[in-house]
Amino acid sequence: MPEQRVFIIRHGERCDFAFGKSGLWMNSFDSRGRYRPLDINLPRTLPKRPDGWQGFAADTPLTEIGYLQSKLTGRALRDNNIEINHVYCSPALRCIQTTIGLLKGMGLEKRLQFVVEPGLYEWMVWARYAKPCWIPPKDLKRLGYPVHENYVPCWTDKELRMNESMVDYYQRSFSSMNKILSDHPEGNILIVAHGASLETCTRQLVGGDIRSTDDFYYLLQNTPYLSCVELNSRDGLWRLAGSPIPSFSHTYNRTFDPLQLITKDLPLLKRERAEREQMRTTQ
Amino acid sequence: MPEQRVFIIRHGERCDFAFGKSGLWMNSFDSRGRYRPLDINLPRTLPKRPDGWQGFAADTPLTEIGYLQSKLTGRALRDNNIEINHVYCSPALRCIQTTIGLLKGMGLEKRLQFVVEPGLYEWMVWARYAKPCWIPPKDLKRLGYPVHENYVPCWTDKELRMNESMVDYYQRSFSSMNKILSDHPEGNILIVAHGASLETCTRQLVGGDIRSTDDFYYLLQNTPYLSCVELNSRDGLWRLAGSPIPSFSHTYNRTFDPLQLITKDLPLLKRERAEREQMRTTQ
Repeated sequence: MPEQRVFIIRHGERCDFAFGKSGLWMNSFDSRGRYRPLDINLPRTLPKRPDGWQGFAADTPLTEIGYLQSKLTGRALRDNNIEINHVYCSPALRCIQTTIGLLKGMGLEKRLQFVVEPGLYEWMVWARYAKPCWIPPKDLKRLGYPVHENYVPCWTDKELRMNESMVDYYQRSFSSMNKILSDHPEGNILIVAHGASLETCTRQLVGGDIRSTDDFYYLLQNTPYLSCVELNSRDGLWRLAGSPIPSFSHTYNRTFDPLQLITKDLPLLKRERAEREQMRTTQ
Repeated sequence: MPEQRVFIIRHGERCDFAFGKSGLWMNSFDSRGRYRPLDINLPRTLPKRPDGWQGFAADTPLTEIGYLQSKLTGRALRDNNIEINHVYCSPALRCIQTTIGLLKGMGLEKRLQFVVEPGLYEWMVWARYAKPCWIPPKDLKRLGYPVHENYVPCWTDKELRMNESMVDYYQRSFSSMNKILSDHPEGNILIVAHGASLETCTRQLVGGDIRSTDDFYYLLQNTPYLSCVELNSRDGLWRLAGSPIPSFSHTYNRTFDPLQLITKDLPLLKRERAEREQMRTTQ
């Protein structure tokens, strides 16, 4: 039996990635910031945030499916008799919401509080435009989230730098993990963070070297939403132990255009579309 | 104001399509038919069926995501103040389960009963191997589904023929719709059926011709899960009126292999895989 088990999980489907091309996500806000979701998979309601609705552009929430992915994954953890004693979370809204879904799925939302550790945030080069302004724990608490208010983090958000190198990112993740593990030498720990976290929060603990950029991106591209990896210790040594739960895979669903059913002559419609497309590309 | 509104909705994500390539779905049954889902998106439990577990191969259930798609769509119907008075459903298990999800999402699962109409089943050429053996209404009732037990259907399952032509299929759908509409000259009707149903249950009612095979397949390929179309009547004339709810779109999630994180040397892993793949194709 391992002495301690740590589970690292990626957040669920994010609004900006799911609706990036269609533009439906940020177009669901009108010019005054009133929100009316343009797709059933966009969140029905949004939490109030101190930096206003524009803040959602850099700190995306989960889609409805993303939240359900989290709940189902929490249920799978419970079904597999995974006991969780401590919960840590990246400050990104999508991770906070995933944590809530996981806790609900495990039936622990009223029994466990979680801690927000900015050191678990993803590689800062991906925060392309500006450092996201995360919702602070005291505001999350006011929104009804079961969050520890008085946790002293390993990294404050002021300490995260925009020009962080990949090595810096590995080191930040590693130091956050060391802080978390020294805070809790006993009990199982759940960490809810980002795709790359499954690598950067475990690699150095198990004695591995920092990967090449190619390998790093290869891993990232092969880490779907709600991926989970277990790290466990025996005789003080940490090792990776795969995932304690099955994979979670599903297909996509495209936007539906009911007008096509009303149109009397589909081949004409297709020809018209092709002609319009050609006109656009030759202009 | 229209005199009557009819909503036709396609079922949610199906297990066989979502896990066809991986084989995870039917491999979740052991040789004795004991079920243990190999993916979090496979249903956690399955209804007992009179023809045994093998019957699920020809009459697939929804995935977990498929059921949640149905609930969210039901909630969207309620949010858009759609009132439903009568519910009809194809005998396929995926449609029955979608109906339950829709009713739950609308908050009507304890207030409305639904009717199973075999005439709403999809084109019989797609039941490639054998006519599926659907769970009969009396068994559905015993499983706790709010189903009418004594409905006299327009088409009995014995009347559905394997060698049905496309024209036959349009005619069967049209006659089922006429029966349903004459049973209920008042009140709004929800019909839960298949992708092609949005076309075949509406086309002749609005005075359209049966489509060419090309157009038929074009429409089918562009009718995602939970697509909805509204048919409504004014002065006794039926017309198509688009969808009363927004589209429902989301991305896919692939299977996750945690072993890749444990592997020390990823490029080697990739090379090995490529070599193995090459050996297999040249054998």
